[in-house]
Amino acid sequence: MEQRLSIITLGVRDLKASTLFYEEQFGWSKLDSSNEDITFFQLNGILLSLYSSKKLAEDARVNSSGEGFKCFTIAFNARSEEEVDNIFLKMRSRQVNIVKEPEKVFWGGYSGYIADPDDHLWEIAYNPFLKMDEKGHVVSA
Amino acid sequence: MEQRLSIITLGVRDLKASTLFYEEQFGWSKLDSSNEDITFFQLNGILLSLYSSKKLAEDARVNSSGEGFKCFTIAFNARSEEEVDNIFLKMRSRQVNIVKEPEKVFWGGYSGYIADPDDHLWEIAYNPFLKMDEKGHVVSA
Repeated sequence: MEQRLSIITLGVRDLKASTLFYEEQFGWSKLDSSNEDITFFQLNGILLSLYSSKKLAEDARVNSSGEGFKCFTIAFNARSEEEVDNIFLKMRSRQVNIVKEPEKVFWGGYSGYIADPDDHLWEIAYNPFLKMDEKGHVVSA
Repeated sequence: MEQRLSIITLGVRDLKASTLFYEEQFGWSKLDSSNEDITFFQLNGILLSLYSSKKLAEDARVNSSGEGFKCFTIAFNARSEEEVDNIFLKMRSRQVNIVKEPEKVFWGGYSGYIADPDDHLWEIAYNPFLKMDEKGHVVSA
């Protein structure tokens, strides 16, 4: 298998509300191929999709019930500590659920967490060891 | 916020076993910056990292208990239905947990699911509407 992935799909309870969250709080634009059942955001070489968590479980033929920690996080790496602070400033002013205020962390970075409407956790971080190109592709770490 | 993400971190119970799973079943190579606490795989412009689910929850300051459906999936889009079949053939011969055998699906693709040692779900799919460049970056959908 080539060393890559194509799509991350987040299961959501309310597709309209979740789509609005990423449009308004992240400032992202969905793809025209999105429809009333699924939302796609074109990211850096991959897609983020939002889809009913119940239908997602059905698609994989697994039980849709689940609770508590989802055992995964997604990180958005900013280009500076200042950018991290600015993102949290905006999120805070818009009543986004801030799970952890940004702080210096043991591995040498600066990081905090926010939650989307379904408690999917996003780490917003600055990592001085992670190199990105101008398009935001991670090229080394 | 730029429309991108940097890292997907999967919480795992046994880092060695999970690392071995991605090395042996996916055939992926970890980054040299991996250590006994964390494993990094350089993917297409993003990283996949494996980290103790307990420590991941601690890092985000959330409760680490959780069970059942994790409300997300990751898709690896192959370049043909035949490639999907070949991947499942290999996975099956190596006793990987096949959650759903590949089949034609309503949206026009061909898709199945496997689970990693922590039941993180990977969809292995062919989607004729999803365009990738030669490096495997998704460019439209």
